[in-house]
Amino acid sequence: MPGTAEAVEAAFYDAIARADIEALMALWADDDDIVCIHPGAPRLTGHAAIRGSWEAILEHGGIRIRPAQLREMHNLMTSVHSLVEEIHRPEGEQQDVHIVATNVYVKTTQGWRIALHHASVAPGQAPVEPVASSMLH
Amino acid sequence: MPGTAEAVEAAFYDAIARADIEALMALWADDDDIVCIHPGAPRLTGHAAIRGSWEAILEHGGIRIRPAQLREMHNLMTSVHSLVEEIHRPEGEQQDVHIVATNVYVKTTQGWRIALHHASVAPGQAPVEPVASSMLH
Repeated sequence: MPGTAEAVEAAFYDAIARADIEALMALWADDDDIVCIHPGAPRLTGHAAIRGSWEAILEHGGIRIRPAQLREMHNLMTSVHSLVEEIHRPEGEQQDVHIVATNVYVKTTQGWRIALHHASVAPGQAPVEPVASSMLH
Repeated sequence: MPGTAEAVEAAFYDAIARADIEALMALWADDDDIVCIHPGAPRLTGHAAIRGSWEAILEHGGIRIRPAQLREMHNLMTSVHSLVEEIHRPEGEQQDVHIVATNVYVKTTQGWRIALHHASVAPGQAPVEPVASSMLH
């Protein structure tokens, strides 16, 4: 299993890209209280409901998502990631919405695992990440 | 300041009900990386943007929200709450959507504070909380 929250996050989006349900579900904490909220959808809890949702979403193949604009808060046991999910689209296709996500990782006896994934739809294209002010001077 | 994540959460929804911007903003961590996502809206970061959004939302008065169906994960430094926000409506008014929220609290040197609030719209009425199985036997 991946050794950091960052590695779990990379493995999560990689499993979605490959539509690999077994790899995807192995990344979640072994806990009935795990939470998954897909964009525009109600809250799902527990492995069975969350697995079922991903099986439906990935039925016709994987989805290439690039996590971007990461804001991270972490301590020894928990890592909270806020990010924009950039979804790969055909060249030239306009996006009139974007997806924002909160991913919570917890350190378990088996290593870092996903405890919560909350994604939602936001209007407009994803805002451009501001250039760090240190780059301007 | 409130002494637990639960008390901060109660104070958060109380401040929204009273449209008390000062009380509301005092509950957030003193950190540029705080995150707030309102239903159907893009991500906001930092005190200035988050304060401005609440000022606009509460311009015409407070909103009574009851946090329900709490799922909580916590350790000594972080508390992650997943809940349904039940919004008070006039008697008999139908709801065809509900709001799900992720609230992250962190323990700071000033006590527990809000680090992230992510709310989104879900279709249909809020699912009824299942009766705990221990109550059925």
